[in-house]
Amino acid sequence: MKLATLHDGSRDGLLAVVSRDLSTAHFATGIATTLQQVLDDWNFRSPPLEDLYATLNGGKARHAFPFNPKHCMAPLPRAHQWADGSAYLNHVELVRKARGAEVPASFYEDPLMYQGGSDDFLGPQEPARFASEDWGIDFESEVAVVTGDVDIGTDAEAAIDSVRLLMLVNDWSLRNLIPGELAKGFGFLQSKPATAFGPVAVTPDELGPAWQGGRVHLALESRWNKHRVGLCNAGPEMTFHFGQLIAHVAKTRRLRAGSIVGSGTVSNKDWANGYSCVAEKRAIETIEHGAPRTGFMKFGDTIRIEMLDGDGHSVFGAIEQRVAPLHDPAPAESAVPPVAETAPAPQAQAQGDSDNDGAAEA
Amino acid sequence: MKLATLHDGSRDGLLAVVSRDLSTAHFATGIATTLQQVLDDWNFRSPPLEDLYATLNGGKARHAFPFNPKHCMAPLPRAHQWADGSAYLNHVELVRKARGAEVPASFYEDPLMYQGGSDDFLGPQEPARFASEDWGIDFESEVAVVTGDVDIGTDAEAAIDSVRLLMLVNDWSLRNLIPGELAKGFGFLQSKPATAFGPVAVTPDELGPAWQGGRVHLALESRWNKHRVGLCNAGPEMTFHFGQLIAHVAKTRRLRAGSIVGSGTVSNKDWANGYSCVAEKRAIETIEHGAPRTGFMKFGDTIRIEMLDGDGHSVFGAIEQRVAPLHDPAPAESAVPPVAETAPAPQAQAQGDSDNDGAAEA
Repeated sequence: MKLATLHDGSRDGLLAVVSRDLSTAHFATGIATTLQQVLDDWNFRSPPLEDLYATLNGGKARHAFPFNPKHCMAPLPRAHQWADGSAYLNHVELVRKARGAEVPASFYEDPLMYQGGSDDFLGPQEPARFASEDWGIDFESEVAVVTGDVDIGTDAEAAIDSVRLLMLVNDWSLRNLIPGELAKGFGFLQSKPATAFGPVAVTPDELGPAWQGGRVHLALESRWNKHRVGLCNAGPEMTFHFGQLIAHVAKTRRLRAGSIVGSGTVSNKDWANGYSCVAEKRAIETIEHGAPRTGFMKFGDTIRIEMLDGDGHSVFGAIEQRVAPLHDPAPAESAVPPVAETAPAPQAQAQGDSDNDGAAEA
Repeated sequence: MKLATLHDGSRDGLLAVVSRDLSTAHFATGIATTLQQVLDDWNFRSPPLEDLYATLNGGKARHAFPFNPKHCMAPLPRAHQWADGSAYLNHVELVRKARGAEVPASFYEDPLMYQGGSDDFLGPQEPARFASEDWGIDFESEVAVVTGDVDIGTDAEAAIDSVRLLMLVNDWSLRNLIPGELAKGFGFLQSKPATAFGPVAVTPDELGPAWQGGRVHLALESRWNKHRVGLCNAGPEMTFHFGQLIAHVAKTRRLRAGSIVGSGTVSNKDWANGYSCVAEKRAIETIEHGAPRTGFMKFGDTIRIEMLDGDGHSVFGAIEQRVAPLHDPAPAESAVPPVAETAPAPQAQAQGDSDNDGAAEA
């Protein structure tokens, strides 16, 4: 099933079931008001939601209404845990190679992960606001799972079974703040501002055979200012599957229901597939030309992230965000223009310089 | 006022108001069921709680019952954010000096902070369970604040006003897992297992003049296996006050109500005040003798953390935890014995070795 959280003025929003084709929705009235409630009590609350989903898909739901992703908050507008991996080692290899550094052998055995802030997530069409363009504003297109309760010491295979939902992520990153923070050794804080999520969270069965071995075997499309810059397969090249990422966190502590675990920037060895974050494009440019040619994002830029299934249907709906200054005269609602279907394939903007991609592996 | 969350079988527990002397409590029935609800809507829900608190202190509350910290969960059993600082630079200096490293000048201007997991906190008397003693089990006695909503870019002085509550913290750390994690650059994950909190959260006015300039000017006592090993003043030597720590997080993102921001291990320059984590004792031993003499905690060890006000009354109640293996035959309830009032002052156990205090600055 597919679930969304709609703005109702509250901090946690109002839970709705969304039809498979993302055309209609229905509030989960009488079952649960928030997605966290469902995750807290999954075995009790998810069956009636599945029933409602079937009714909605059959066109028989009584109070269905048109689904508009503009009204979505993040499926979990705030969560109790957001732990993000860097599970596509190709991404790490590129970024390191660009700065002449080796990838330690341990990185192939032991996943890179960081603890992120989870108190304030952005909805799929909310602008991403920053005080300065000089911080090196960058998107990161990712996939994430939402877990149920996971015991300490759960192994990687068993951990796959704890996956309740999948989501799309835009893990906003401030590249020029990263080297200084990582040099301090305590990880990201200022360099990882509020993270955005796609319109709907979906149960693994929605992916059919594309959900296999704890990986999502579908392509993730990233469009920067309408240009498709990345179409990377999220499956085979995910070095650590989601069960391994969850088990990594669970080594010394439980994960409680509603924990979000991310894949890190999706990345493929074949550069023709493009990129899922600007830092990777810049790393490739540095390897090829000795220096980056593409600048980071500017105020007014847009980013659109979407994943289509084997039949060409959107699985999660799209993240469509605009980069904006902290305070601007634009209306609060999203001003992302519709994406031109005719936009050309992988192509970047040559926007100048900035030489500080220090540690962009997240 | 003082607030506690009592076990009722639910994930978020049941909110209670606790009398100033910690002798009686009263459920917040009709006002709020959870502490997060109060924080979400502070201006509306805190005044009736204050009224109930006054009635309870006056002995006039109708359904008061004896307060027993054994029934407490963490005041916020799960939160949406836990960001911990390392605000006592003396602690950082000691740990670095022990391993022959300098403290970068920037550390005096720019606080060290890390993002912690917040999905699963321990109550004040819950055992702290670990799979192995070899991980270098250590307590960290700290103070933390709980904030209201904080805007992006809020300055340090204004951020002090966002403090709604204060709490005691035991930031459990696995010292032997820290060097490997920090070397990866992404901060703590496995090396910071579930954090424990004191029985009650208190509003800043409860501290009277001891809450000044965003610092808590009271001594924090740590008793390890009944021996007082630390009595460190949390006030004057806190290099960065809580407003500065909050503002550090708020540089690039909002903090939403219920965010917990910690002080890091409380530490004083005067070694006679003892220590608030074993790693610091070991650092001092290394400086004095060339190697640590005190081992980390063992299964069965106890730790008791408490802060008394100027009149000798407990402000927050005590954290009283037992270190335990993941699965043991002991009853689930706490088995911490009462602390002997006659226990001697600062004295450590010489328990052997372990040479890996790599990066214990949290």
